[in-house]
Amino acid sequence: MRYSQTIFKTLKQAPKEAETVNHKLLVQAGFVRQLMAGVYTYLPLGHRVLNKISQIVREEMDAIGSQEVLMPMLHPAENWKKTGGWDSIDVLFKLQSRTKKDYALSQSHEEVVTPLAKEFINSAKDLPLSIYHIQWKFRDELRSKSGIMRGREFLMKDMYSWHLNQEDFDKYYQKAKEAYLKVFKRLGLVAKVTEASGGSFTEKVSYEFEVLTDSGEANIMYCDKCDYCVNIDDFKKDSCPKCAEGLLRKATAAEVGNVFDLGQKYSKAFDLKVDGVYPIMGCYGIGISRTMGVIVEKFHDAKGIVWPKSISPFAVHLVGLNGLGEEVYKKLTASDVEVLFDDTDKSAGEKFANADLIGIPVRLVVSEKTGDKIEYKERNSDKIEFLDLEEVIRRLN
Amino acid sequence: MRYSQTIFKTLKQAPKEAETVNHKLLVQAGFVRQLMAGVYTYLPLGHRVLNKISQIVREEMDAIGSQEVLMPMLHPAENWKKTGGWDSIDVLFKLQSRTKKDYALSQSHEEVVTPLAKEFINSAKDLPLSIYHIQWKFRDELRSKSGIMRGREFLMKDMYSWHLNQEDFDKYYQKAKEAYLKVFKRLGLVAKVTEASGGSFTEKVSYEFEVLTDSGEANIMYCDKCDYCVNIDDFKKDSCPKCAEGLLRKATAAEVGNVFDLGQKYSKAFDLKVDGVYPIMGCYGIGISRTMGVIVEKFHDAKGIVWPKSISPFAVHLVGLNGLGEEVYKKLTASDVEVLFDDTDKSAGEKFANADLIGIPVRLVVSEKTGDKIEYKERNSDKIEFLDLEEVIRRLN
Repeated sequence: MRYSQTIFKTLKQAPKEAETVNHKLLVQAGFVRQLMAGVYTYLPLGHRVLNKISQIVREEMDAIGSQEVLMPMLHPAENWKKTGGWDSIDVLFKLQSRTKKDYALSQSHEEVVTPLAKEFINSAKDLPLSIYHIQWKFRDELRSKSGIMRGREFLMKDMYSWHLNQEDFDKYYQKAKEAYLKVFKRLGLVAKVTEASGGSFTEKVSYEFEVLTDSGEANIMYCDKCDYCVNIDDFKKDSCPKCAEGLLRKATAAEVGNVFDLGQKYSKAFDLKVDGVYPIMGCYGIGISRTMGVIVEKFHDAKGIVWPKSISPFAVHLVGLNGLGEEVYKKLTASDVEVLFDDTDKSAGEKFANADLIGIPVRLVVSEKTGDKIEYKERNSDKIEFLDLEEVIRRLN
Repeated sequence: MRYSQTIFKTLKQAPKEAETVNHKLLVQAGFVRQLMAGVYTYLPLGHRVLNKISQIVREEMDAIGSQEVLMPMLHPAENWKKTGGWDSIDVLFKLQSRTKKDYALSQSHEEVVTPLAKEFINSAKDLPLSIYHIQWKFRDELRSKSGIMRGREFLMKDMYSWHLNQEDFDKYYQKAKEAYLKVFKRLGLVAKVTEASGGSFTEKVSYEFEVLTDSGEANIMYCDKCDYCVNIDDFKKDSCPKCAEGLLRKATAAEVGNVFDLGQKYSKAFDLKVDGVYPIMGCYGIGISRTMGVIVEKFHDAKGIVWPKSISPFAVHLVGLNGLGEEVYKKLTASDVEVLFDDTDKSAGEKFANADLIGIPVRLVVSEKTGDKIEYKERNSDKIEFLDLEEVIRRLN
């Protein structure tokens, strides 16, 4: 993409109303715009990041045999009345048609996926079943000031599974947990899993996937030797009860995913039965837009964002100086490298500041000074190298 | 994809409530499910078709220099009040938050894209500008019985452009028109362009892209020699006024796209000015989910759907008989061919009927009878050939 041809340029200053790092940097660097509190437009750079996160999540859900569908956002009230959510969920947006029909907006999709699954689950042979989609959700939040980390409209991957018994759910939960940890690893994050109460969804336990970050709202304790992790409010000891070797450390963390054991609540509400038994249902969420915000909170410095390679909007930020760079841009593009090419007539200083603000992992410079070589610098390093094009392409692949 | 591992199987019968061919066939063949009138879930096959149509549209919009963003669906009432749409558009869904803030659901996106563009259009150098997105829309329709052809929730590509003057808009409209005709050609459709009144959007003319099909709601006349086409209500002659050679033929057609010359209406409403002038704005829509419905209306026979190659959910439908086909499935997949592999233990008759119903353009059969060869049959032909794997792969690429 030629930077001269996109209108969505960086700003000199972060917006005044922004209270969080992700809101400030994502707006200033030209990734998003706030339409109103908690509701955002994704500009070309931001849209690319959102798609890359979605694709990683999709690949890992496909890998554990879940089937991708796309469920709608406008739901008949009846479905939400059947489960009690219509009256009990305070963040549920409700609306009415001209003909006085009541609808809810998708706050989650249990109320749609359960009757859908009911049609297709005809015998025990059809279980276990896992379905997911990546779709926008709406929550009537009283306060929404955390940038894209807590939106009134937000993108989520939600997966649902059905099982003949608790043991089979537990087995699938282990598979899903591994898939989740792979997703977060591919996103450059270290996620810890804690147990928590299931809130309005279920009386059973739920599992939260937390990323250690200073800007998180959750207070957790995690073992420095094994994968043990708990919510701080639940736990007062300082040695690990699991491995008995490690010490528990306090940290703040941001939730990026969760799993709820829904038990038979929804199976019963929609009378989904197999051989006279209500299947155990699980729900597995990953906040796609939220995770994008968490990543910015975690990976930035005083100059701007530092995107992990796997979800950077482009693989390289090519800075052309003195009108140069055209040929390198074409060759990189022909080699299937995703390039953001700053071909504007701004000063070198401004272009470098922009590259740091936008945060693509590799910056290339072509100028009169670089001659036959290309200046190569990684966003999170000060080391500058002069490489030929082949070596650049080799490193990028 | 292994058919045995997807739960979303075909039905013996079309749903009784379905009144249109697209609704009947898409449900029976396992592409969609109706949640309520005008609101659908896209099952794995349907989701793949929707993505393929979107990708073709995306490529052609990118090719004319439009920039892809993603705008939200929950809009502040203020924006709709500024343009008068809040009171004048009867299909606009309205809702209120717990704190009594009024919102509209995205019926279209002029009210969001205009203030967005305003931030980035700072001088005449920033024009012309073109932005698009592919996003869900909501319309409070009184009646919604045309399957996915007229949804209360539907997927649309909407593009918006801004121009210093009418001449520049007209120039861009010609570019967009060519792009639209390319899109419809790639989708296997022949689209005709008619002029119509712009409805609530504008007092200027608008252009409608119509596909000739028996199930369309529009009555048009088109020249049998040139590209002339009009709405029948506007025109009573029978020889072509454009080329003076052709005869006008009557036809019914379905609208799949439209272009509105919005004039200065939205620029004025949001005080978007360049050098003291309100830019001319254009709006260019393609109904993605609607087009999927139109394609089914146009391409089907008594046995089922006949997908155009470019948007078929899979390139081939591989039928394995007598437990065979596994090796061919693996080899095709390894050659990057998208395969739906019927590895179930149903009878040959049932499998063939399913393949015809689902409508993938090429059916392959591997059985004891086929030996070293593979039976190759196109969905819209009765010719059966026996080919080796290399020849099959060659034909599919």
